[in-house]
Amino acid sequence: MTGTVYLVGSGPGDPELLTVKAARLLEDADVVLHDKLPGPEILSEIPEDKREDVGKRAGGERTPQSEINARMVELAREGNDVVRLKGGDPFVFGRGGEEMVYLAERDVPFEVVPGISSAVAAPAAADIPVTHRDHASSVSFVTGHEDPTKEESAVDWQALADTGGTIVVLMGVGKLPDYTQALRDAGMDPETPVALIEKGTRPGQQVATGTLDSIVEARDEAGIEPPAVTVIGGVAGVREETR
Amino acid sequence: MTGTVYLVGSGPGDPELLTVKAARLLEDADVVLHDKLPGPEILSEIPEDKREDVGKRAGGERTPQSEINARMVELAREGNDVVRLKGGDPFVFGRGGEEMVYLAERDVPFEVVPGISSAVAAPAAADIPVTHRDHASSVSFVTGHEDPTKEESAVDWQALADTGGTIVVLMGVGKLPDYTQALRDAGMDPETPVALIEKGTRPGQQVATGTLDSIVEARDEAGIEPPAVTVIGGVAGVREETR
Repeated sequence: MTGTVYLVGSGPGDPELLTVKAARLLEDADVVLHDKLPGPEILSEIPEDKREDVGKRAGGERTPQSEINARMVELAREGNDVVRLKGGDPFVFGRGGEEMVYLAERDVPFEVVPGISSAVAAPAAADIPVTHRDHASSVSFVTGHEDPTKEESAVDWQALADTGGTIVVLMGVGKLPDYTQALRDAGMDPETPVALIEKGTRPGQQVATGTLDSIVEARDEAGIEPPAVTVIGGVAGVREETR
Repeated sequence: MTGTVYLVGSGPGDPELLTVKAARLLEDADVVLHDKLPGPEILSEIPEDKREDVGKRAGGERTPQSEINARMVELAREGNDVVRLKGGDPFVFGRGGEEMVYLAERDVPFEVVPGISSAVAAPAAADIPVTHRDHASSVSFVTGHEDPTKEESAVDWQALADTGGTIVVLMGVGKLPDYTQALRDAGMDPETPVALIEKGTRPGQQVATGTLDSIVEARDEAGIEPPAVTVIGGVAGVREETR
């Protein structure tokens, strides 16, 4: 009997922000395939003997996606129920879509279990609502480091600025100077509030705040390290109203 | 002793997609303030004697936000720990930001507990990833019925189309003809895949699929009723690869 592969989001890192379903599946799974993105607080609660780290190979380089895909299928065909645990939500920049299609094409039973994306939860942990009636009618999520193998690699910062909504950048610590410049070039007010949240919802959470003009300096002063979430827009100023 | 108000997201409707923390807080709360958005499957699990429906007044019209705000503060000052339960995530079109500021200004202790937004989970339940390397470098969330009291009420559909990313419209069943037309006028390919998901993750889930040109007809044929989630972009076609 082929087992089932569950593509499960682990949420932003606080173990209490796992869903009830994710907690149950982690309990029941025969094998949990993961990288380091779910974070140590969650990973340490999974019994050692069913964890399999597919983030890095022995040499230190990233495990190719093809190898992870093959391993999911192999384990399921051996009869294991597999949790493929992914940081945040499997379908928000998590390559879960590709894994789902791979499984479907090989007739391996699968189920997708959403998780809370750090794109929403990290700002929330810093008292920043990604939408707000006075500030934003929309919110857009992008990543700071685009996949270079993709044909059209450029995020359209002009269009994102033109939406007038909140912009949330995942994995955008290193490229912060580039896209804040791109947004000013696109005509965004240099005084637009910006916040950076490192380890959102987790021990050691750190927040740096500023504007499009000043956030790079604020990042350096606060010593914000990747991975972190960047929030750009009037909503990033709302936290001041709670203080 | 003033109690604490927890602004808690209930997720997309499946009780197992509550977070572990939300489930614990619902168990421990003295009072749960809610409307009907969390859905009957979740609401029916909360003991009747601590539920207080603030969605509609006796006459049937919507309870004004000011009244809900005042009630939260009143209950907390009486010493109650209050869960203000909101469908999806409190900070994704949930007015949670306003409620948080109201509490903070009155020195009422509060905590925000994120939930899984149906903007991600409803598409996922229909095998649609909101981002995908081959289709979308960004995803934007908007609502179909804009708040008419807001000064700048128009969502910029041109800018959203120009991002080239996925567009997810919450509460957009009724206005579907308007914004699909706006997106075609903005130059989006009329053959762009579109999916509508009603009751995502819940019993009775229904999905209608088509293109910018055909989705209104597909909605009517399937009899999709509000509330539902609309996904616009190449990702809406990925579900075909799983079938």
